[in-house]
Amino acid sequence: MVADNSWAASDWTVVEGGVTAPAGFLAAGITAGLKASGKPDLALVLAPEGAVCAGTFTTSVVRAACVDLCAERLQVSGGLARAVLINSGQANACTGDRGLIDSQRATQALADRLGLEADQVLICSTGVIGVPIPMDVLLRGLDPLVEALDPEAGAAAAGAILTTDLVEKQIALEATLDGRTIRLGGMAKGSGMIHPDMATMLGYLTCDAGVPADVWRGMVQRAVQRSFNAITVDGDTSTNDTVLAFAAGKLLPDSAYAALEQGLTQVAQYLARAIARDGEGATCLIEVQVQGAEREQDALRIARTVCGSSLVKTAVHGRDPNWGRIVAAAGRSGITFAPDAVALWIGEHQLMANGQPLAFDRLAASAYLRERACGRYLDDDAVVIRLQIGSGTGSGRAWGCDLSDQYVRINADYTT
Amino acid sequence: MVADNSWAASDWTVVEGGVTAPAGFLAAGITAGLKASGKPDLALVLAPEGAVCAGTFTTSVVRAACVDLCAERLQVSGGLARAVLINSGQANACTGDRGLIDSQRATQALADRLGLEADQVLICSTGVIGVPIPMDVLLRGLDPLVEALDPEAGAAAAGAILTTDLVEKQIALEATLDGRTIRLGGMAKGSGMIHPDMATMLGYLTCDAGVPADVWRGMVQRAVQRSFNAITVDGDTSTNDTVLAFAAGKLLPDSAYAALEQGLTQVAQYLARAIARDGEGATCLIEVQVQGAEREQDALRIARTVCGSSLVKTAVHGRDPNWGRIVAAAGRSGITFAPDAVALWIGEHQLMANGQPLAFDRLAASAYLRERACGRYLDDDAVVIRLQIGSGTGSGRAWGCDLSDQYVRINADYTT
Repeated sequence: MVADNSWAASDWTVVEGGVTAPAGFLAAGITAGLKASGKPDLALVLAPEGAVCAGTFTTSVVRAACVDLCAERLQVSGGLARAVLINSGQANACTGDRGLIDSQRATQALADRLGLEADQVLICSTGVIGVPIPMDVLLRGLDPLVEALDPEAGAAAAGAILTTDLVEKQIALEATLDGRTIRLGGMAKGSGMIHPDMATMLGYLTCDAGVPADVWRGMVQRAVQRSFNAITVDGDTSTNDTVLAFAAGKLLPDSAYAALEQGLTQVAQYLARAIARDGEGATCLIEVQVQGAEREQDALRIARTVCGSSLVKTAVHGRDPNWGRIVAAAGRSGITFAPDAVALWIGEHQLMANGQPLAFDRLAASAYLRERACGRYLDDDAVVIRLQIGSGTGSGRAWGCDLSDQYVRINADYTT
Repeated sequence: MVADNSWAASDWTVVEGGVTAPAGFLAAGITAGLKASGKPDLALVLAPEGAVCAGTFTTSVVRAACVDLCAERLQVSGGLARAVLINSGQANACTGDRGLIDSQRATQALADRLGLEADQVLICSTGVIGVPIPMDVLLRGLDPLVEALDPEAGAAAAGAILTTDLVEKQIALEATLDGRTIRLGGMAKGSGMIHPDMATMLGYLTCDAGVPADVWRGMVQRAVQRSFNAITVDGDTSTNDTVLAFAAGKLLPDSAYAALEQGLTQVAQYLARAIARDGEGATCLIEVQVQGAEREQDALRIARTVCGSSLVKTAVHGRDPNWGRIVAAAGRSGITFAPDAVALWIGEHQLMANGQPLAFDRLAASAYLRERACGRYLDDDAVVIRLQIGSGTGSGRAWGCDLSDQYVRINADYTT
C-alpha cells in the first residue's frame, strides 16, 4: 500500500487521451436516441483479448439492477470481463424485475454481436431513477455502436456517458515500469447526487499491464477510497455508483506494483476532482486536507464532513473566510480530537492555532477565495482548506465544491 | 415510555404564553447591546424556589465553554438549577480559556444579584463562533435584566434568544393530571446550523409539576429524541446546541408520568417543527414519516436522512414530486431494508408500491406541494412524505424544510 502522495509527486506523466490510451482497449460513443436532447448516450469499452476487472459499487440498499448484474458477473468470473456497455438517460433503478431482464437482454445482444458470452459483458446505466431503458432504441443502437469501435474513441465514450455534466472527464498517464512503457487511462461522469460510498456515479479505468485479479482488486479499492470515495457534491449517494477498472497485458513483476498503484490513484484522483469541480452549480473546487489524525480513515472522514457542510460550501461561495463553520463541521464528524490542538489554514492564511482564532488579514483571505474561483480546467484552482487536528500520522484529503443558487435552480427544476 | 403519537391526539390543550405559563417561573428579555442590530439579546429564566433540571447538549467535539459549564453543574448538582442566563450575538465557542472564564464570571455576577450560588445558575450563548462575549456590555445588562423579571415575560425572553430566526418560537400546554392543573411551557431558537445531535440550537422547557430528577431526565431525553433530534435544516450540528428542561412544583404521582411525558413531547415537537419551518430560506416545512421499520431508531434515521437530502429538499422547493430522490436517500441511510417492499406517498398521492413506481397524477401531486408552501404559522402546512419500508412495528418522524436560493444567499453573506 502506497501513501497518499501520488498527486503531488510521481513518475507518471500525463499523455493525451482516456480509456483507449493504454494498448489493447477499444471504445465507442454514439447517439442512439436515449436522451431527448439528442446528445451522445451510448458508450462501449472493449478489451478484445479480455482483462482483469475490479469493480466497486454503491453501498445504497436501493441499487439499480445493472449494479447487481456487474457485481454478480465479476464475482462468478473471479474478476474477469471483456466489455462494458454504458447508457445515459435512464438509471434503470427502481424498475422492478424489468430492470434486470433489460440489463441481461442488452448484454446478451451486445455479446452476440461481439462473439462473446453474455457473462463477459457488463452494463451500467445513468440518468433518471425509476425510468426503464427504451429497449428498442438501445438495441437498434448496438450495430452502429460496434461499428464505431476504435482505439482512438476514448473521448467519444467519455462524452456519451454524461448527464448533467458540463465537461468531459478523462485522463491518461504513462510511465516506465520494469523497463516497459505502461499506460493508465480513465473516464468518469458525475455532477449531482454525488457522495459516492464505494464509487462515483460512473468511472472507468484501463491499464495495459497485467496484474493478478486479487492484487488488482486491492489496488483499485485503495485508489477508490482516496479518490471517488473522498468527494462530495451534495451528500446524496446514488443508486447506480460504479467504478470498473480493467487491466490487460503482460504481467508486471511485484516490484512494480507500488508504482502502478501510485499511477492508478493519480488517475482516480484526477477524475474524482474533475467530478467535484463539475458539481452542479459549482463555481470552485474545494480541497480539504486533514493532518495529525490517529488514522488515515479518521482524517478522510473529517475531510469529507467539512467538504460536505452546507455552511462551509455557502461560505466559500460567498468568498467568506468563515472559519468557525469549518471547525464546527469537523467537530460533528464523529471523530474524536482535542479542540485545543486545532490549527487551520485557508490557502496560506493561518486562521487558528491551539484551537483559538488568530488575527488574520480578512481581505487577503477573501481575495484568495475569489482568485480560486475561476478555472474550471486548471489543476491548481482549488480552494485549499488545511486542518491540523493533533500530532498523529493519519492524513487524508477530500474534495467538494461550493453551494450556489444555481445548484438549487438546477435541482428544483430537474424533472418538471 | 409513551408511543410517538403525542402530536396527533392528547389531553393537553394549548394555552397562551411560553416558559412563564407554568406557575413558579419568571423570565426577562432585554436589549443589552450585544447585537449590533439593537435587537433584544439577553434573556433570563428563573425558578425562584429552585427546580429539577435536565439538559441535553451538542455531541460535537468542538463545543462552547458554556455547554461544558451547564453539563458540569447539572452533573454535580444531580440535576438541580435555579436560573439560566442566555445571550445572543456571540456563541463564545472556540474562544479558548477565556470562554470558560467569561461564562463563570457572568453566572457569578448574576447569582450575586439574585442571592444565589453561582453553581445554581446556567448560561447559554448563541451567535457567531469564535467571538467572545463583550463582558462589560453583558455585566452592565444584568441589573436591568433582573429588574425586568416578570411572570408574564416569557415572550420577551423568547425574543431575546433569536439570531437569524424570523419568528419567535414558544408554546404552552395545560392538562389536568392527578386532579391538578399542570402547565408545560417552552421556547426555542434556531434557523441555521440545524442538525441537532442531542438538542437543538437552544430550547427551554418549563413545568409546574415536580418530578424526581432521574425520571425527568429520562422523559426529557426521549422527548428530545423525537423532536429536536429529529429535525434538520442544513445537516450542520452546532457547537452550542442545548436543551434545558426545568420542573418545579409539588411532586406528581407515578401514574401521571405517561401523560406528562406526552405533553412534554408535544411541546418539544411543536418547538422543533417551528425551528424547521423557520429554517434559513425555507418556504415550507417537510415532515417525513417512516413506517414498517424494525426499530423506532431505524425509522428515525431513515426519516432524518430523507429530510436532510439536498436533492429531496430542492425537489420540494421546485414543487416537483421527484420520488426517485426520496427512495435514493432512504437507500443510503445506513439502515437495511428490502427495496421490493417499499411504498411511498406524497400527501395522499401514492407514488410507489412494492418498490416500483406507480402511474400517478403528476399535476395533482405538484399542486399538493404548492398548496403546502404557504403557511409559516399553521400546524397543518407540512409537506408530508410517507415511506413504508416493510412490515416491522418501528415508526418515526422527522422534520426539515426545502432548500432555496435564499438559503444560499443568507449563508454566503453571513459574516462579510
